[in-house]
Parts: sequence; structure tokens; C-alpha cells
Amino acid sequence: MRGKVETAGKVDVRSREDLAAVYFPGSMEPAKAIFRNPELSFQLTARGNSVAIVSDGSAVMGIGNVGPCAALPVLEGKALLFRQLADINGVPVAIKARRTQEIVDTVQSISPNFAAVDLEDISAPRCFDVENALREQMNIPVLHDDQHGTAIALLASLINGCRMTGKRLGDLRILIQGAGFVGIAFAKLLQHLGLDRRYAASVREIVVCDSRGPIYEGRGFLNRAKEEIARRTNRSRRAGPLESVLRGMDVFVGASAGNVLNAALVRAMNADPILLALANPVPEITREEGYRAGAALVCTGLQDDPNQITNVLVFPGLFRGALDARAYEINSLMKLHAAYALAELVREPARDRLLPDPLDRATVRAVAAAVRNAAHNTGVACVLGGEPQRDAG
Amino acid sequence: MRGKVETAGKVDVRSREDLAAVYFPGSMEPAKAIFRNPELSFQLTARGNSVAIVSDGSAVMGIGNVGPCAALPVLEGKALLFRQLADINGVPVAIKARRTQEIVDTVQSISPNFAAVDLEDISAPRCFDVENALREQMNIPVLHDDQHGTAIALLASLINGCRMTGKRLGDLRILIQGAGFVGIAFAKLLQHLGLDRRYAASVREIVVCDSRGPIYEGRGFLNRAKEEIARRTNRSRRAGPLESVLRGMDVFVGASAGNVLNAALVRAMNADPILLALANPVPEITREEGYRAGAALVCTGLQDDPNQITNVLVFPGLFRGALDARAYEINSLMKLHAAYALAELVREPARDRLLPDPLDRATVRAVAAAVRNAAHNTGVACVLGGEPQRDAG
Repeated sequence: MRGKVETAGKVDVRSREDLAAVYFPGSMEPAKAIFRNPELSFQLTARGNSVAIVSDGSAVMGIGNVGPCAALPVLEGKALLFRQLADINGVPVAIKARRTQEIVDTVQSISPNFAAVDLEDISAPRCFDVENALREQMNIPVLHDDQHGTAIALLASLINGCRMTGKRLGDLRILIQGAGFVGIAFAKLLQHLGLDRRYAASVREIVVCDSRGPIYEGRGFLNRAKEEIARRTNRSRRAGPLESVLRGMDVFVGASAGNVLNAALVRAMNADPILLALANPVPEITREEGYRAGAALVCTGLQDDPNQITNVLVFPGLFRGALDARAYEINSLMKLHAAYALAELVREPARDRLLPDPLDRATVRAVAAAVRNAAHNTGVACVLGGEPQRDAG
Repeated sequence: MRGKVETAGKVDVRSREDLAAVYFPGSMEPAKAIFRNPELSFQLTARGNSVAIVSDGSAVMGIGNVGPCAALPVLEGKALLFRQLADINGVPVAIKARRTQEIVDTVQSISPNFAAVDLEDISAPRCFDVENALREQMNIPVLHDDQHGTAIALLASLINGCRMTGKRLGDLRILIQGAGFVGIAFAKLLQHLGLDRRYAASVREIVVCDSRGPIYEGRGFLNRAKEEIARRTNRSRRAGPLESVLRGMDVFVGASAGNVLNAALVRAMNADPILLALANPVPEITREEGYRAGAALVCTGLQDDPNQITNVLVFPGLFRGALDARAYEINSLMKLHAAYALAELVREPARDRLLPDPLDRATVRAVAAAVRNAAHNTGVACVLGGEPQRDAG
């Protein structure tokens, strides 16, 4: 099979009149209208429903830095999911680039074709730089899904873990093992909980660990992203081996490597701990071992886990909602509300029924509605046919 | 309607197994294979059947320099025609760029997604610079269709005009009115006739005129493209008003502005002249006036002309043939053979039956076969799964 997606026509061209209508001179009227008001490109062309799926192939899931051509199968798979789950035109954009700035410049240049940009499979810290630069410069949403999609799915799992166990988010002490882009994005999303009146505060404590142990301000070996996290987490400067840092923790989030957690370590945690172990294909701890060690809940990123924590739960509805609002960015409240919507789709969370089905269109619709509403409520939605209301928020 | 094309899925995703197959980990195997041999991206993804339709919106047909967003309706129309006529994934790529180099860099960066690049609606002389730079740097075909597609359709018309009137190409004296990209591309294509053993020589004489009259070496007011043409045409340095330059001419090719030709001027030409008048929406001379003045054949670019000279006759088959050969470029012989194939589709050329139907799939198939064969015969076709045979030609 040559690819998982293709360009399809939406109208038939059978006669010379059809040809004139779809090509020349028929394209002149919409072209003139868009020239007068570029915002109309979102309504008069496919732009308003199109997302660029951008990668330089520097961190292809499960394989690593294999380059742009090798990223194409992943990008096409995602384009297929965008179409089937959210009726979005996903357009694979594999970019040949050495420097970060080349990725930024390229995405900027081709932005007129898209209503949003989904960054994918880009290595850290390059992914932070690309996302930050593009968010600054563009008036369409730019989101590194590997970071934020996964962080949102994690938060939904955590919320339902709390509902299931009777814990309160604000009371939680959370250890995040792994300071790659997933761990860092999740730590930031947790801190943004305080932005929403529903919580009005973050969790009680967040400690992020890398391979050298807990991160705190002033510790050595911190890159820019870790330094930022160090200023905002682990204020009590916990240090030492994982066993001692886990003492008193309610939640372990694994965004690192297989087998870093074991039964003895889990027993060092508070009663009924929640373990969210994302390493793939070998998680930080298996569900069996986690439950045997007394965990209240164990979730992994494995596909045969009934509660698989995956960005597939998130990106279709997140982008659908952003496009429906013609949002000019995806902000923290839109992300939080995506997580709430996912969590609320499960009436009574249980060990084997914690998250909704990612392939259920109702999941996508609920996330999209929540995101669209959050966009409108935070003033980042554009009035149809008008200019972006940058100042309305 | 939000656009004329959309991204369509080629497989259904109904179960978690489907999801794993199309996304993760199912994308890992083809990704690894492509990493080992990037040429496989043409077979294992949509790349091998995908053409970037690139414009900066600097010369949108009929409107002018309206920018990238306003080019989208035209690019989408073309993507629709690529799909319906040639089963090709045409991908609109409107580029926001001030400098020529930015267009070149952007197309370079996104080249991993495509098997060919169709440049569209880019103003002269920028279109020459972009095309030349990209042709130098890329190992996939890059073609400014407004130039070459139109030139090929012109040549097919001229060939059948000769068949109809009994004239021989090698005897023709041709005046090309207009030294924009169409006039210049057609002059070059005519000179390349000599590359093919079928003709082994160009026409007898070519004179290209701009708004200041005939172009010849040493004349003033020549840009780079015109200087190149000046070195190769009008060796007898014809000068003076159109009326005197038309004396002795067999063919008038109009790629300029409406109404520059009239009956008196036509009568200055040789007997039974051929008039190809492309200006749109008002041609250099109408069919009625041309025939009244004694022309053997008058063709225009108007859609209600039964012999409409249009690039729609060309680009679907030209790119189909280039993709089928996995050609690394579109060379002059491929263009010439596209024109021959178009001409030969008409068994007995007549005034109202000079060119085939652009919407007939048989037209596309014939052009594609001719182009594919020419690619193989000139050594620019890549062996499937192998490296481009740059040196085989």
C-alpha cells in the first residue's frame, strides 16, 4: 500500500463548465475575497479544517533520530487518525532541517495552508525551542502533541484515579520520574491546575527526577527546560536515591525507562499509591507487579492495557475543538478542560475502566466541545470572518 | 464548501489492533526500512504519488500579486484536477515568502513528502530563479507548469496546425508576441525540437517581441531571461513595428495582451497563417476576426474555444508519467514527447478538432505513457527501490 492517506476531491469535474468552476476562472472570486480579508481563507478553502503534522524525524517514537523520510509512516498514521476520528485534514509535513531555526522558518512559510500545527516526534530540547518560537510568531495554534497530548491523558488518568480512590488532587505528592518532554510537560500542566477555578491550586508537591535523581534549584547538570522546572518544583529540595524520595509520595509518574520501579520501592510510598508508568514497550513497572505491591491503580502506555494512557485520547478532540473555535492558540485552560472532559466521560472510574475509548467518536466530541468552550471563555477564539481577537482575553 | 480537496484515509481504524497497526508500533517497521534506504519512502508511503503544488501567490492567474492565502483556491482546484484526472495526491503549498531564496529553502525543507514539485502562479523573473535553483538542488522533478505546461500545449497545437495545413515545422517562421514566462518557455521548447531525432532541428526562425518590439542581442531593456532568448533567436536582428516584423511569418503566438493583433496585421503574414492567441480573457485576436483575415487556424486560451490551449491538457499526464518512472527531473525530451502524444491523439486535425479532450482519461494516459517512456529512454527514471541513476543518461 502506498501510504495510509491520500488527497481526495470533494467535487466532480465532468464538463468544461465544471473545469471552469473549480479552476479558472472559478477560483478568481474566492481568491479576490481572501485577498481583501485573509481571514476568509479559513472558510473559503480547506485551510480552516487542516492541520500540519510536522516532524524532522529527530525522535521517532520507538526508533529515535531517523530523519524526515522515515517519519512519514508515523505522520501518515496520524493523518489517518485525524480524518477518521475528528474529520480533520491532517497533512504530513516531514521537514529536512539541520538547525532548529530551519524548522521554525519552514513552518512559518507554509502556515497559510493550515489552521493549526501539530509538532510530532521532535527531540528535546529542540521541540521546546521550535514550539516556543512558533507560538510566539503564529496566529494559529502550535502544539507539540508528544508533550501536551500525553500530559493531558496523564492528567485525565490522575483525576479519575483520585475519583476512584477518594484522594483529592490538591493533597497529592507526585514524583515524576523522567525529565524528558513528557515529564516536564506534565509537571507544567499540573501547575496550571491553579489557573482554573475548579481547582484554584496545583497539587501539594511535585518532584521531577532525571537519571541523576531529584531536580532542584541549584543542582548541577540542568538544561534550560530542567532549570525552569527546578525553579517551580521540589521547593523542599528533596534529594537522594529514588527509595528515599518516594517516601510520602502518593503518585509515581514514569516517563523514563523500563523497570525503574519495583515492589519494594512502591511499598515505600503512601498507602494506595497511583502508578502511571508510560515507558514503552517495557513500562517502569508492570500492572501485575504494581498491584501485587499494593498500588490502588496502575496504568501504562501499553496498547493491551484497558486504560492505555495515549495521546490518541487527546489530539483528535483537542484539535477539533481548536479548529471549531478558530482559536489562535491552544492555552493551558483548553488543555485542562480536555483532561476534565476525558475524565468525566467515565461515570464510575474503576481499575479496568478509567479512561474512555479513544476510538469512540463520543470521546472526540466531548473533548472537542470542552476545548471549544474553553477557547471561547478565554478569548482565544476568533469571530468567524473577523480578525483574531488577540485582546479579548 | 470548505475547500475542493480533503485528506482521505485509505484504511479503516475500528479496533485497538487497527490502531496499533496504523500508528504505533505499526509504523516502526516501514520507518526503519526507510531509514535504511530513503528511496523506499517513494513506495512505502504516499510520497511516490504526491506532488506539491507550490505558489507564493505573486502572479495568481487573472488577478496578480495577491499573496499566498489568496492562491489557495487555485492550488486546491489544481489538486482536485490532479486527483480526478491522474490519481495523484496534489498537496496545496501556499508559501509566505518575501525573497526568492525563502521559497527555495521552504520547498527544499518539505521535499521529503513529495515525488515532484509543481510551481504555480509565481511572477517572473522570480519563477525562473526558483525553478532553476530547485532543479539544481533536488532529485525530484520541479516544473513551473504555467511556463512549461502551456508551452507544451502550444507545441501540440502547432504540430497539429502543421498536419492540418501541410506546413512543416522545420520551415516555420514564428513570431512570439510577449516575453513573459509563457513566451520564453515556448521559444525554448521550440529550440529543443532539435534534441529529438524526430525533428533534429528547430523551426526556421523565431522572433520574440516584448512591448518594445523584437528582442535581439544588444537591444536595450533586456532582463536576464530576455538576454538569454536574445542570444538564441532573431539572429537576423529584425526590428521595427509589429506590422513589418510579421511580414514573412507563418505563425503568430500571442502570450501578451488582448487585441494586439488585427486583420490588417494578419494579412501582412505569409499565406494561411496559424494564430495561437493565448491572452485571457481577451485574446490577441478573436477567432472570428482571425479567420476573416484569412488565417488557416486560430486557437485561443478561452474555455469556450473547442481547441482551448490550456495546461490542463498537459500537467495531469506529464506528472503522472514522471511519477510512474520515479523520474528525478522532467527534461526537454519528456516535454516534447508530451506534446507529440497530445497531437497524435487527434487522428485528423481540423479547425474545430485540433486538440484532445483534457477531461478524457485517455488523454492523460497517452501523455503519461509518452513521458514515462521518454524518462526511461533519457536515463532519468530511477530503478524502483534503488538509487537515482544520475549517471545513466
